[in-house]
Amino acid sequence: MLSPLLDELIKALRRLPGVGPKSAQRMAFYLLARDRMGGRVLGEQLQLAMQSIQHCRQCRTFSEHETCQLCCSPRRDQSILCIVETPADQMIIERSGFNGLYFVLHGHISPLDGVGPDELGLPDLAAYLKKSSIEEVILATNPTVEGETTAHYIIQLVKPLNIKCSKIAHGVPMGSELDYLDPTTVSLALAERKITNF
Amino acid sequence: MLSPLLDELIKALRRLPGVGPKSAQRMAFYLLARDRMGGRVLGEQLQLAMQSIQHCRQCRTFSEHETCQLCCSPRRDQSILCIVETPADQMIIERSGFNGLYFVLHGHISPLDGVGPDELGLPDLAAYLKKSSIEEVILATNPTVEGETTAHYIIQLVKPLNIKCSKIAHGVPMGSELDYLDPTTVSLALAERKITNF
Repeated sequence: MLSPLLDELIKALRRLPGVGPKSAQRMAFYLLARDRMGGRVLGEQLQLAMQSIQHCRQCRTFSEHETCQLCCSPRRDQSILCIVETPADQMIIERSGFNGLYFVLHGHISPLDGVGPDELGLPDLAAYLKKSSIEEVILATNPTVEGETTAHYIIQLVKPLNIKCSKIAHGVPMGSELDYLDPTTVSLALAERKITNF
Repeated sequence: MLSPLLDELIKALRRLPGVGPKSAQRMAFYLLARDRMGGRVLGEQLQLAMQSIQHCRQCRTFSEHETCQLCCSPRRDQSILCIVETPADQMIIERSGFNGLYFVLHGHISPLDGVGPDELGLPDLAAYLKKSSIEEVILATNPTVEGETTAHYIIQLVKPLNIKCSKIAHGVPMGSELDYLDPTTVSLALAERKITNF
């Protein structure tokens, strides 16, 4: 309304997730008034990232190289592979200290959205497992209906390859209060209880 | 962590106001996975805007031209000038149907932050008023201590020029409930009551 370029900038900022008209306007005015350098840097990094970041050929995570840093690293345990739904999940697992390899699905099986095994790269996963030295596959899909379906599908795929398959544990999260947990989690935590060693 | 370019993008997104590490990560992953075109467009618009948008020579609002569209328009009432603190305030006033001219301070007097009359362009305002056809100046600074101080300063500046000076009305906002208003606003609304005409 004040200037066509400003309108275009506000419109473009609204494409970011969680940014409505008011926040977009606030961001535009903030950058113009207080941090033009920040705006320029963000503009450059967006251009660079959108152009150069592709999927790692091996694990499908985001990477600017054909094969990502983790897949290339000789310091990673080449015998264990963790399967996650998204790169964000991968980052969480990585921060927990996991030192094996990953496979990123970029989604979960969801026939209504047209997402099947092919879209998740499962044929590539099968081919990769056959020629790799992976001895154990850890499933870290989300404990949702779609995540569990996806995990089930992958188990069927891994079984004939004679590779060990595991799922991350579900139960009471550390630091939480039982009082605030849903009954399903509590019942699962009870069923999966572990005998303590004295 | 996954890729240096991705890290740089997340860092750059954090320069936006109200965007923390988690939102920045979510934005980066969203653009890469679902809206690369949106990311590219935003990158371009940021570059363009940071480079081309400057301040209008006359009213100081953001504009990609030396003089902004509003100041140039022959359809605006050239006899009335509304003074606001920010371009965002200007947009709100503009949406209300105001059809005069504007002067944007880009802040308010705040000695602790080193913002005085010069930083707000008040010498330019005085020079502008002297050679213009403005007959009334409307003060629309915020009803805060700094806003009121700024308004007071501008009144002193306008007075000797024989130009009418007014302030926007303060009172109970439309659609609000008295119950939730602060006592100062209510007391002001009572003091400024208007006699109804039958």
